[in-house]
Amino acid sequence: MRILGIDPGLQTTGFGVVDVDGPSLAYVASGTITTGHIPRGNLPARLKVLFDGIAEVRQRYQPTAAAVEIVFVNMNPQSTLLLGQARGACVTALVACDLSVAEYTAVQVKRAVAGHGQAAKAQMQAMVQRLLKLPGLPGPDAADALGIAITHAHAGSSLARIAQATPTARRTSAMYGGGRAY
Amino acid sequence: MRILGIDPGLQTTGFGVVDVDGPSLAYVASGTITTGHIPRGNLPARLKVLFDGIAEVRQRYQPTAAAVEIVFVNMNPQSTLLLGQARGACVTALVACDLSVAEYTAVQVKRAVAGHGQAAKAQMQAMVQRLLKLPGLPGPDAADALGIAITHAHAGSSLARIAQATPTARRTSAMYGGGRAY
Repeated sequence: MRILGIDPGLQTTGFGVVDVDGPSLAYVASGTITTGHIPRGNLPARLKVLFDGIAEVRQRYQPTAAAVEIVFVNMNPQSTLLLGQARGACVTALVACDLSVAEYTAVQVKRAVAGHGQAAKAQMQAMVQRLLKLPGLPGPDAADALGIAITHAHAGSSLARIAQATPTARRTSAMYGGGRAY
Repeated sequence: MRILGIDPGLQTTGFGVVDVDGPSLAYVASGTITTGHIPRGNLPARLKVLFDGIAEVRQRYQPTAAAVEIVFVNMNPQSTLLLGQARGACVTALVACDLSVAEYTAVQVKRAVAGHGQAAKAQMQAMVQRLLKLPGLPGPDAADALGIAITHAHAGSSLARIAQATPTARRTSAMYGGGRAY
């Protein structure tokens, strides 16, 4: 299984690709898609950059599953609306080609990667580096995206264990991508 | 010019297609894309229905321009986030195929269609029926989408008038789709 993790943002969207073979994880690629070169007022053009960027990543690395972080409401309602639109463009770029999309909250990602839901950003970067045996510390956006892919890998192996006990339960969970539905 | 107007919503997205030939407007099609048959918790699947639905409308009617209503923040921040994602999927479905997307606020649409920004829903429906010479009253979602297409038709003819005076000004406005940037 090759997982594409996405940390959506209107200014910067992180992506991370991880190969999963049973309990072992292998780093494939990571990076960011930025819309900084597009005038801020031209939202459709910014959403197109996100959509095209994710489509390019998908074509290059051919993931078999995807996972996207569940974003939260911001103090500023206008920012919430903009972040929502960015996430909509990211999710759409994945489902447009029938890639199944799982969803995880930041707390779920922190628990899966660092063992507890209050892990700081630096700790997450260090744990992602360790789990994927990276030569250096990944950038914060790429680390988040890789963390989401790792979370989905863990959820997948949990689901596989459940599947051995109850085939029906697994199908139901898998329909919602193994992540929290909202 | 054939304009596709979109009134985005997660539950129901309205669309309306209008042909513009100088000052005359002609109704082509209108309707709604609904996600009611998808489980509420499966947001990626709901966004895919919106994306695929708009792609189908685009392929069937071959519009040369598109306009999308600018949505506003809701009392409930979680609803704002969901509406943002729905709008992101709608805009993405248009820009993915290089269709230019203009954006208008509800007040701009009301002004363009009914002459003032406080027009009630029923008044908008009646005005859309009159402007497009429809045999019956359009549904509220379709009327909104047709209203957005009409607004873009009016903005286009205003821009054409400006263009005769100042070619540069027109190019700058057109870059932002003639609507309010935000």
